[in-house]
Amino acid sequence: MTFPVVGMVGGGQLARMTHEAGIPLGIRFKLLSDTPQDSAAQVVGDVVVGDYRDLDTLREFARGCDVITFDHEHVPTEHLRALQADGIPVRPGPDALVHAQDKGVMRARLDALGAPSPRHRIVTDPADVAAFAAEGDGFPVILKTVRGGYDGKGVWFVRDEASAAEPFRAGVPVLAEEKVDFVRELAANVVRSPHGQAVAYPVVESRQVDGVCDTVIAPAPDLSEELAGRAQELALRIAAELDVVGHLAVELFETRDADGEPAVLVNELAMRPHNSGHWTQDGAVTSQFANHVRAVLDLPLGDPRPRARWTVMANVLGGDYPDMYQAYLHCMARDPGLKIHMYGKDVKPGRKVGHVNTYGDDLDEVLDRAQHAAGYLRGTITE
Amino acid sequence: MTFPVVGMVGGGQLARMTHEAGIPLGIRFKLLSDTPQDSAAQVVGDVVVGDYRDLDTLREFARGCDVITFDHEHVPTEHLRALQADGIPVRPGPDALVHAQDKGVMRARLDALGAPSPRHRIVTDPADVAAFAAEGDGFPVILKTVRGGYDGKGVWFVRDEASAAEPFRAGVPVLAEEKVDFVRELAANVVRSPHGQAVAYPVVESRQVDGVCDTVIAPAPDLSEELAGRAQELALRIAAELDVVGHLAVELFETRDADGEPAVLVNELAMRPHNSGHWTQDGAVTSQFANHVRAVLDLPLGDPRPRARWTVMANVLGGDYPDMYQAYLHCMARDPGLKIHMYGKDVKPGRKVGHVNTYGDDLDEVLDRAQHAAGYLRGTITE
Repeated sequence: MTFPVVGMVGGGQLARMTHEAGIPLGIRFKLLSDTPQDSAAQVVGDVVVGDYRDLDTLREFARGCDVITFDHEHVPTEHLRALQADGIPVRPGPDALVHAQDKGVMRARLDALGAPSPRHRIVTDPADVAAFAAEGDGFPVILKTVRGGYDGKGVWFVRDEASAAEPFRAGVPVLAEEKVDFVRELAANVVRSPHGQAVAYPVVESRQVDGVCDTVIAPAPDLSEELAGRAQELALRIAAELDVVGHLAVELFETRDADGEPAVLVNELAMRPHNSGHWTQDGAVTSQFANHVRAVLDLPLGDPRPRARWTVMANVLGGDYPDMYQAYLHCMARDPGLKIHMYGKDVKPGRKVGHVNTYGDDLDEVLDRAQHAAGYLRGTITE
Repeated sequence: MTFPVVGMVGGGQLARMTHEAGIPLGIRFKLLSDTPQDSAAQVVGDVVVGDYRDLDTLREFARGCDVITFDHEHVPTEHLRALQADGIPVRPGPDALVHAQDKGVMRARLDALGAPSPRHRIVTDPADVAAFAAEGDGFPVILKTVRGGYDGKGVWFVRDEASAAEPFRAGVPVLAEEKVDFVRELAANVVRSPHGQAVAYPVVESRQVDGVCDTVIAPAPDLSEELAGRAQELALRIAAELDVVGHLAVELFETRDADGEPAVLVNELAMRPHNSGHWTQDGAVTSQFANHVRAVLDLPLGDPRPRARWTVMANVLGGDYPDMYQAYLHCMARDPGLKIHMYGKDVKPGRKVGHVNTYGDDLDEVLDRAQHAAGYLRGTITE
């Protein structure tokens, strides 16, 4: 059979779960991983250990792949262009991916599209940050390095000019954004294929703790059909305008407009399977991982609809004790319907080492089950 | 983290799908495969290529595994005992597994348990077959080699003494069974752990074509709650009495007793994930593969309940054309809710190369979608 080979750059948990989703599809999966111990490298058959920042390594890896896709957004744009020049389909392509790599490029493009963003501009030094604050409602403001940040890294919450020096120390461009007084965070996840087919998952609520995603509720409770529809349309429009191929997560702030009506602002874009879509593994007809694989191969996309009234995802972070197996056993015994997803990673405090999904008809109960299991695995709940 | 290593003997599709189910569980999976091209060997990271009939190979493979389990029932009993003597847990153990390996042992044990079987006895030659027939309602009778048969292989439908010679040519013991005038075939699938926890999946209807499973409907339509309960209890009792660990499929004939009331007879036993349980991947809270892994590791078992009113599994057999990819693409486009499971096998006419699952509220529609996709992939349906 001439089933194609998907080359995945990056050995993290997103690659691991994409491989899992690719097994029933019958596709071949090839992995470029930093080490043989990486999350995905533990479970994939065809693994190349190498450095994605090295073009020769990438080129060698790409030989024999029908398409290249990504576990993360850190591959240099010029390398992606070189692969394309070699004739290897790169999905998402570098012209799309740059919007997820560079927050400055992303904001400029969203502005050009008329997509709603927080007030923002590139700033040059602490005095310029103070000027940016004064242009709006004053401090606090958010500073972000335009490249390389994630999960709260590369992001600063700045209360005055004096504390605005650190982001500039690395000598890289810094983006200032107003601190949005949001009601909550949402995410609109869509998947788009090269021939333009696209599907939209239900809009979810994403609850963050210390800048890290903690809990996702699908669908977002008490979200009006109208605003959900607008958020989905916005995500689909961004995917189409940016020519995204694969999964696109549009992280949103839910706010109130000048008339007090619910509105959304775009917070971040991610062009790969995303934490806010992990609930789809157990809660949707087709998971984000399966649809990402289908999209990058230009296969028809699968049904994104939910399978349960409510699905809740809670991230499992590392706690103080290194061996999670006994807690894991306890959680399975306590809740036979709990869906555990472990990443095979060593436990370090605060590190994402897995997630759990629960689903059912009663949101309070579904939320409690997920959060209890995540807390028990982390060690913050002991009964 | 001290997550355990499951050693799987055999590289077929059952091993492939067990690996898929083990990824979210965070367990390590090690495979002993006949060739590097076997279905599971394509997708597993830690693969040993070797011959399971060689004890040294098995012993070397088992080193570093926390438990050994199986994709098939062909490992010699004495080898399993040797592994046990080395201190490696073998699950299911050889004393249980022999009942799935040897149909003579299985029938004798079921008789001792008072479990209902078709009329049967070991026969020695064609004249003895004629005697067996005369002891009951006459020909036709079914002859089976006690070891090594599956999917219609090693099974003969014999209409008279003259045609009963072939099964004896191999010089192995032959079991004769009455030809049961059954209403339909059912399967009762259960999973049992070493500490005795057990779960029962809904009883399913299994439709065979040419001795090969074609379609499975979960739950079996129009099956009385009373008979379904009896079938589940029978399967749970067999699992407990035979000390089965892992998944046990009890294939059943639905018949009518002397009073015309519905009854069941045991047809076959399989001690591993089974074709009649493939529907659980998309139709149950916990799949048979995930529960098999949980059982052999003595982890608490997952909820076996169905997620949809009806789930239908249809096997995809190889047809006349070797490249299934275009048909696969067509099926995805036609039915975005179709769940395809391909095994990565080369197409040969009649070979099982995958299966599809569909689910929903309307049985006719769910059945039609599954059978259309399976037929289209095989090439027997072209529109």
